Amino acid sequence: MAGRLYGVGLGPGDPELLTVKAARLIGACPVIAYFAKAGRRGNARLIADRYIPEAAEELPLYYPMTTELPFDHPEYLATLARFYALATASLAERLAAGRDVALLAEGDPLFYGSFMHLYVRLRERFACEIVPGVAGMAGCWAAAGAPMTWGDDVLAVLPGTLPFADLVARLRASDAAVVMKLGRHFDKVRAAFAETGLIERALYVERGTMAGQLVAPLAEKREGPAPYFSLILMPGQGRRP
Amino acid sequence: MAGRLYGVGLGPGDPELLTVKAARLIGACPVIAYFAKAGRRGNARLIADRYIPEAAEELPLYYPMTTELPFDHPEYLATLARFYALATASLAERLAAGRDVALLAEGDPLFYGSFMHLYVRLRERFACEIVPGVAGMAGCWAAAGAPMTWGDDVLAVLPGTLPFADLVARLRASDAAVVMKLGRHFDKVRAAFAETGLIERALYVERGTMAGQLVAPLAEKREGPAPYFSLILMPGQGRRP
Repeated sequence: MAGRLYGVGLGPGDPELLTVKAARLIGACPVIAYFAKAGRRGNARLIADRYIPEAAEELPLYYPMTTELPFDHPEYLATLARFYALATASLAERLAAGRDVALLAEGDPLFYGSFMHLYVRLRERFACEIVPGVAGMAGCWAAAGAPMTWGDDVLAVLPGTLPFADLVARLRASDAAVVMKLGRHFDKVRAAFAETGLIERALYVERGTMAGQLVAPLAEKREGPAPYFSLILMPGQGRRP
Repeated sequence: MAGRLYGVGLGPGDPELLTVKAARLIGACPVIAYFAKAGRRGNARLIADRYIPEAAEELPLYYPMTTELPFDHPEYLATLARFYALATASLAERLAAGRDVALLAEGDPLFYGSFMHLYVRLRERFACEIVPGVAGMAGCWAAAGAPMTWGDDVLAVLPGTLPFADLVARLRASDAAVVMKLGRHFDKVRAAFAETGLIERALYVERGTMAGQLVAPLAEKREGPAPYFSLILMPGQGRRP
């Protein structure tokens, strides 16, 4: 009988923000798989550390080195597709041998997660179960103590990769917003907030719920690029009695 | 020394989807507060049940009966404001006496949560800490096994209370969408999906992660109103190698 694939959300970074179910499954699955940069242990492995038993088989999935290529370059896409095919084969081998696999996912598995690329390649062949997690953005607004959405507020979750004019239009049309994937797009995103006049309402959060957590008004955070664990929050101001 | 207020996210409904931190704090706080409808035990109390010690003081906060009034009616707002003032006083009394209070919140405390109304009234006077939770929508897309956002997808979270034309415009402008607060707005929301031609991509989810969970194509769910624990998901289709 084949094993089952669990997509296990790890939450925003604090190891206590895994769910009870995630902690239980990580402790019970014979194979623990996770993505990592080549030569690194990886953030997912670090967050889950205390829950992984000694006896588990660890299966790190090392991303290929592609940082010099743009995201829409055919070679980048081909390299990633090969990587996902190899990782899929590696998981399928364990599953076919009857072993359950927990594939760790920072935040929530189905919200901008690398997990999804293996999930869509495996779900026709093996039983799969998703364990949702606390999203990174929820960890950040908790760290900021910022109520995000009230009453009938509309929330937009925007990637920082959007063009400047698109960011401006979408910020203007939203009551509340989260901008993710800042990186080298930080300066453009900050300029979009300045253009709309909404910058005074926006917060910059780095490493929310983790060691080295930083919360600052966006207006005071002047220089990019922004690190991996960072985003911008614009809390809503909707109906409240 | 005054007590500390914890805003504790309970996640989408499955008691195993509380975080390890939420479970620990509920087990440790001498006072457990939660919102409920008058005469009911309440969903929050039900989800947290297994974690609440016998010895804890339970402090149910019963919503006033206001169902016959529209949300923007002055009497509705005044009634709610009085309720929040009384609830605030009740929590403040415990906190001032040096007792920690865990205020339970379904989903995430700062994402459309009643918790926020007490939080903004108490945070200047008492130490507060937010324990983020798995959002209800994440429980629903996990239940549906539906990858929600890929690559550079823009996600819109929309209340079903929006006017029809506004819903249509925002659905057309988004790569992925969640529509919450369906209730008696269900038929209008469904008509908006039909108008955009996006209805074939949309899923209706009821009681995600809970007993009686239901996942169906929106096109097959023909009649409203929709119950409290329900929403519509339109998964994104963004970049994927």
